[in-house]
Amino acid sequence: MTTKELVKQIRKKRSFLCIGLDVDIEKIPEYLLKEEDPIFQFNKEIIDSTHDLAVAYKPNIAFYEAYGVKGWESLKKTIDYLNNNYPEIFTIADAKRGDIGNTSYMYAKAFFEDMNFDSLTVAPYMGRDSVEPFLSFKNKHTILLALTSNDGAYDFQFQKVELNTLYNKVIEVSKTYKNAENLMYVVGATKAEYIKEIRQIIPDSFLLVPGVGAQGGSLEQVCKYGLNSNIGLLINSSRGIIYASKTQGFAKEAREKAQQLQQEMKQYI
Amino acid sequence: MTTKELVKQIRKKRSFLCIGLDVDIEKIPEYLLKEEDPIFQFNKEIIDSTHDLAVAYKPNIAFYEAYGVKGWESLKKTIDYLNNNYPEIFTIADAKRGDIGNTSYMYAKAFFEDMNFDSLTVAPYMGRDSVEPFLSFKNKHTILLALTSNDGAYDFQFQKVELNTLYNKVIEVSKTYKNAENLMYVVGATKAEYIKEIRQIIPDSFLLVPGVGAQGGSLEQVCKYGLNSNIGLLINSSRGIIYASKTQGFAKEAREKAQQLQQEMKQYI
Repeated sequence: MTTKELVKQIRKKRSFLCIGLDVDIEKIPEYLLKEEDPIFQFNKEIIDSTHDLAVAYKPNIAFYEAYGVKGWESLKKTIDYLNNNYPEIFTIADAKRGDIGNTSYMYAKAFFEDMNFDSLTVAPYMGRDSVEPFLSFKNKHTILLALTSNDGAYDFQFQKVELNTLYNKVIEVSKTYKNAENLMYVVGATKAEYIKEIRQIIPDSFLLVPGVGAQGGSLEQVCKYGLNSNIGLLINSSRGIIYASKTQGFAKEAREKAQQLQQEMKQYI
Repeated sequence: MTTKELVKQIRKKRSFLCIGLDVDIEKIPEYLLKEEDPIFQFNKEIIDSTHDLAVAYKPNIAFYEAYGVKGWESLKKTIDYLNNNYPEIFTIADAKRGDIGNTSYMYAKAFFEDMNFDSLTVAPYMGRDSVEPFLSFKNKHTILLALTSNDGAYDFQFQKVELNTLYNKVIEVSKTYKNAENLMYVVGATKAEYIKEIRQIIPDSFLLVPGVGAQGGSLEQVCKYGLNSNIGLLINSSRGIIYASKTQGFAKEAREKAQQLQQEMKQYI
């Protein structure tokens, strides 16, 4: 998907909501467990119930890998379902990969070609030749970890390098990577005040913002500093939406939570 | 596996060789392609032919994920084959994971419990709460990326933080993590001169050293600076061993390459 198509969808739906599919079998409604593939069934119902309110879905790959081959099958069915039924949706594989060149290329093939995700989250620690293989895929997007929303972010991301923080350095250096136009960035909403500073380095890039809702970030603050002329934001909510209820009406209740966020968002679009 | 058991195996085999199973279907002998699961068959023959010379095997997870569900099945069969037939072998899932706490925990469950790997490589960028979930598993080892062997290592790992390099900072901070005794570190052999300095920070930890052979590192240099009283080194070679030949004798030729390295190693043990 091109960035232009993503922006068009955002304007049409008046939403920049991304729904995180972090599906834990212990947290889904019990009656789904009798289905052949409970995780896929859960995802399908969540997607059907919210696809007009969200512009992106983000399966968290760990939650599928944890169930081995079976989990991998659920993931494949989920991305196929999205691509076949809602081709306008932007899909994010939240995998946080990153390795030496030929290995990164294998990951890129797995997520961009075999599964046909639109984008993938990537960790920057190994530098240029670990990121560029992802960037070489046309109309695919690499979402680089810049400033994450967890406490551990203070361990390294805030370390000063040349009077700068490491996370700002990561963003600056990544702009020099080949095909850098395919980059987006993870920026945690729990630190909305830093988004202003980040926007000075990358005014035009999309930011994927986790941590609104369950993790305590403020949508208003993120919009204040993060919006650009193309909107330029994808706000993710996972648990706050998909685990709204454990009853047969779970998909309807997930929809209500998604709608609350979309209603807040539409005033900015 | 406990560190003590690993050291015992190293002394017994007089080897600290780790063989990387980075299996690309385009690089394995053609006649294997008629097998039901060519990748597993390739791995099985390599393992049977080299298990007395190596103390560890390291499947590179990207190469399995690239084949989707089928690749995941090959990986599962490979780790099961190792655990069932060569339980003394130390197994490393080279996955370079790392995410917020509950997600890291799901990854840990996938690799340590479901697949029963002894260890996993982890990227440090997200800090403490992304690493500690892995460390909480008893007799399982977390191999933290410290100084990698690729060119991109210079982008961030060599950045100065408080008069230190980021990679040394990563090592220092990680020592304060809960259950830090379960940590090992990836340290690239292409920078053997830095191993001396790293040994002053972590004299007792095991180092997983990629980049000997194909990537140009020197075993002698690595041993000079890296050996400790428990040996404390695992030297990985992937392509240099497993792709020694594309003929029916590939497993035998892989054995010869492994034996050359083991012969060099035994003088240090």
